Amino acid sequence: MEDRSIRILDLKKTILEDNDADADLLRSELKKDKTFYLNLMSSPGSGKTTTLKATIAGLRDSLRIGVMEADIDSDVDAKAIAALGIKSIQVHTGGMCHLDADMSRQGLRAIGTDDLDLVILENVGNLVCPAEFDTGACKNAVILSIPEGDDKPLKYPLMFEKADVVLVNKIDALPVFDFDLEKFRENVRLRNACCPVFPISAATGEGVDAWCAWLLQEVRTFLE
Amino acid sequence: MEDRSIRILDLKKTILEDNDADADLLRSELKKDKTFYLNLMSSPGSGKTTTLKATIAGLRDSLRIGVMEADIDSDVDAKAIAALGIKSIQVHTGGMCHLDADMSRQGLRAIGTDDLDLVILENVGNLVCPAEFDTGACKNAVILSIPEGDDKPLKYPLMFEKADVVLVNKIDALPVFDFDLEKFRENVRLRNACCPVFPISAATGEGVDAWCAWLLQEVRTFLE
Repeated sequence: MEDRSIRILDLKKTILEDNDADADLLRSELKKDKTFYLNLMSSPGSGKTTTLKATIAGLRDSLRIGVMEADIDSDVDAKAIAALGIKSIQVHTGGMCHLDADMSRQGLRAIGTDDLDLVILENVGNLVCPAEFDTGACKNAVILSIPEGDDKPLKYPLMFEKADVVLVNKIDALPVFDFDLEKFRENVRLRNACCPVFPISAATGEGVDAWCAWLLQEVRTFLE
Repeated sequence: MEDRSIRILDLKKTILEDNDADADLLRSELKKDKTFYLNLMSSPGSGKTTTLKATIAGLRDSLRIGVMEADIDSDVDAKAIAALGIKSIQVHTGGMCHLDADMSRQGLRAIGTDDLDLVILENVGNLVCPAEFDTGACKNAVILSIPEGDDKPLKYPLMFEKADVVLVNKIDALPVFDFDLEKFRENVRLRNACCPVFPISAATGEGVDAWCAWLLQEVRTFLE
């Protein structure tokens, strides 16, 4: 299954006691390095990789972008990203359901951030555990797709509390599924009053411009 | 948010060292009690609750069914099940991303299994962690829905290795998504050579009869 053109890093388990402090340290290192680190989280199958591809297309003329694909196993997504000619690395968590700050740092060192303005982590597909561990990212983005249902902020509260931005993906499928976008916005607000919500279709491109504009602004503010 | 008509149990964290041994013990207790315990796992939003409702409709004339709804928080699903007049309980994991055997036992004791042939656990929506902990269930069922993509057995290998049966839900959405059912079957077989795969639409009822017939046979064999 393995494609040798994809660089694969097996992450070492973190031995640090205080991940929160380490995450703050990583953010200060990133600030110094002038690299914005975005943590992209979602369930399996909500369209992280397609959203990543659409985001790269929207921002590659403005920013130097790198991608860390995290997976328990496989390099399915890394192949898709490498095909775009984007600097990328596949990190394997060795069965772990999340990344923490030190695992992030291992990946960032391996990819090399000197020539990158923005590194996007495609975290392990999981709406639960990744929210419990600060990766040291500058911002956390959560994708929820239409087929998953508008009640998910009630059922996975921590993920939506930790989000700095929420993308509602697959809005082209709205006619097929019983998903109330206004109800979803209300449910997000119950957890996270000021979190912006961008409805998008990564597949058709609808709404992607607004999301890319938001992200570009965040990156520029951080890099200043 | 809380509806007092729903019984909610806050699970205690397990202190047992050897969950695998405890899971085997729970299975022997269940065999003696003549109660079949089914562990239903999937991502958030793949249709666990809708599948549960369709399964109850298909089997309630043949079996006495109870339901344990596991959630980190909320009682959204328990309300839906209670509305069917089915014996049910909401168990809260207190932030934990999975249930183990002792947490299962706490829930089974609270619901009371004397008058039940089949208890279905709707596990926490998560394709990663629940697969790592044997709940003591007689069988593990995994639901994967069409919008999630046919590559998921490659990306979440342990979940598909632990499955005794796989349901492919939302097949009514096949025309809208790029999902190859044969490719998916192949990907399941790579992880789990003999695992039966049932394509269903819990919403329209398509394929539900075959799944219910399989489950009824498993329950009857266990109860004999």
